[in-house]
Amino acid sequence: MKARAYCSSANLGPGFDLVAAALDAFYDEVSVVDYSEDSKPEVVITDIRGPYGENLSKELNTAKRAVEYMLEEKKLPYRVYLELWKGIPVEKGLGSSGASAAAAVLAVSKTLGIELSPEEAIKYAGEGELISAGIRHYESVAASYLGHIVVLYSFTPLKVIKIKPPVEPLFLIVLPEVKAPLRKTSIVRSIIPKKIPLEVHVRNAGRLAALIYGLTTGNLKVLGEGMFDEIVEPAREVYVPLYRKIREVALTNGAKGVAISGAGPSLLILVDEQTSSTVEKVVKEVYENEGISVKIKQAHLAPPAHIIE
Amino acid sequence: MKARAYCSSANLGPGFDLVAAALDAFYDEVSVVDYSEDSKPEVVITDIRGPYGENLSKELNTAKRAVEYMLEEKKLPYRVYLELWKGIPVEKGLGSSGASAAAAVLAVSKTLGIELSPEEAIKYAGEGELISAGIRHYESVAASYLGHIVVLYSFTPLKVIKIKPPVEPLFLIVLPEVKAPLRKTSIVRSIIPKKIPLEVHVRNAGRLAALIYGLTTGNLKVLGEGMFDEIVEPAREVYVPLYRKIREVALTNGAKGVAISGAGPSLLILVDEQTSSTVEKVVKEVYENEGISVKIKQAHLAPPAHIIE
Repeated sequence: MKARAYCSSANLGPGFDLVAAALDAFYDEVSVVDYSEDSKPEVVITDIRGPYGENLSKELNTAKRAVEYMLEEKKLPYRVYLELWKGIPVEKGLGSSGASAAAAVLAVSKTLGIELSPEEAIKYAGEGELISAGIRHYESVAASYLGHIVVLYSFTPLKVIKIKPPVEPLFLIVLPEVKAPLRKTSIVRSIIPKKIPLEVHVRNAGRLAALIYGLTTGNLKVLGEGMFDEIVEPAREVYVPLYRKIREVALTNGAKGVAISGAGPSLLILVDEQTSSTVEKVVKEVYENEGISVKIKQAHLAPPAHIIE
Repeated sequence: MKARAYCSSANLGPGFDLVAAALDAFYDEVSVVDYSEDSKPEVVITDIRGPYGENLSKELNTAKRAVEYMLEEKKLPYRVYLELWKGIPVEKGLGSSGASAAAAVLAVSKTLGIELSPEEAIKYAGEGELISAGIRHYESVAASYLGHIVVLYSFTPLKVIKIKPPVEPLFLIVLPEVKAPLRKTSIVRSIIPKKIPLEVHVRNAGRLAALIYGLTTGNLKVLGEGMFDEIVEPAREVYVPLYRKIREVALTNGAKGVAISGAGPSLLILVDEQTSSTVEKVVKEVYENEGISVKIKQAHLAPPAHIIE
């Protein structure tokens, strides 16, 4: 049994810890290669392959931890053997660890015949994030598991809205090849302000409202206007070289919205068919003028995690 | 020329300074009784009538100030004579001052043949709020002017989304007869915290997302779940007697959501046809057991401000 889950882009600007988009540019796959009853739940990762599989830990792995947690919670004493295929670039802000966990939870639950509610699946997969991020967080696993756009509007209990916009947004995923020495999400989180001025809260909330309205109605202009954050991005952009500059040239060349993808350094740019190639060109130029090479991929919203064989 | 504008309920919980609903329970009307060219713009209120017209200032009046500001900005040297009919209870958190201003701006602009964009009209009417609230704020005038639900998602420049939910929400407007010595919006605003913990911002933003999604899709359950605020209401509820108790009994008796209307002391409760009378009954009981008399009115979303004769 093999499951596929797509990469994700969290926040979309003002949706910190709440909003994420599943994107079809990259995906991970997890196969259950074997399983047997055992005295206590255990997960063994036998192999990690794929273009981004090198140097990944088989022990401190979100897929392993997510499935172990699911087996513990469901009181299922199995030893499960998994194989990972990593197609999502690691530590780029594209929800790589969350996608592995989502695919693993799906593959194992289907293999063992366990029925999971979306909230249960997200909870188990999110537990895996403790390994990679140092905290539980759910928005990227929710996007990888449920597909399209997710909004976590309550944490205790976990409640999630899924939005499939009536007009398909087109994004550019921008991957600058920068060495970010402090890429671990836990460290990148620690620089976010702990307190926010009321007026900044109000302005950010307004743009989140625009984001949700734009996604729900398919009004991509309003969606793009909503992709602007004053709370998390100003703190994070020190680790995201050229962000303000890229933002500016993208918007003046027809992009509808720009945001840091997750904790960065990748960016997410909302474009349309007409402006896509121009925006790609000018963004590339900005990086290359500074000696930074960059990859840019078009992406649409991705389907939910699913069994492929 | 006479214009009518409906009352409004601001915030709906987490939408502080952003979201307001126009409600058909009460309305104000403004008539242009005469006008003539003059050396500088001036507005004279000749009479204030109606059930809530007593003891209102003709000088420090939002309708007067809103129209004067419009005439100044548009460089229209007219002396305009207005008559107000106040059908909206004053200082109850129902956007009474905003409705007068919205009706006045509409009546005068139509009389003088001035074309206004929605944003212009809201800006002029919002200027009137300086008189009553001590600051410019736009969400209640926007709701009274545009009708249904409005979301101000940008302030500079002013940008507004208008939402007409595909399923008609039913509200109860609860008007407890309490003397609130400090009812002026400017004072009620001053007790709101100036800084907000990040985690509270995230939780409130999540519920705002639910609110916008619920309104846009007509999912009234999610809308009701979104009507919960941790920032403004905890500060304001000291002026809103029994709020937590009312909230609890309403929700346990089938209400979908409860919020303080504007700055209070009125409440807004989202119900459905089946639960409406039960909720009304239990809410009434709570107040009456404490010796507070209360009026409760059903309300649907109201249409935009419009000319009636």
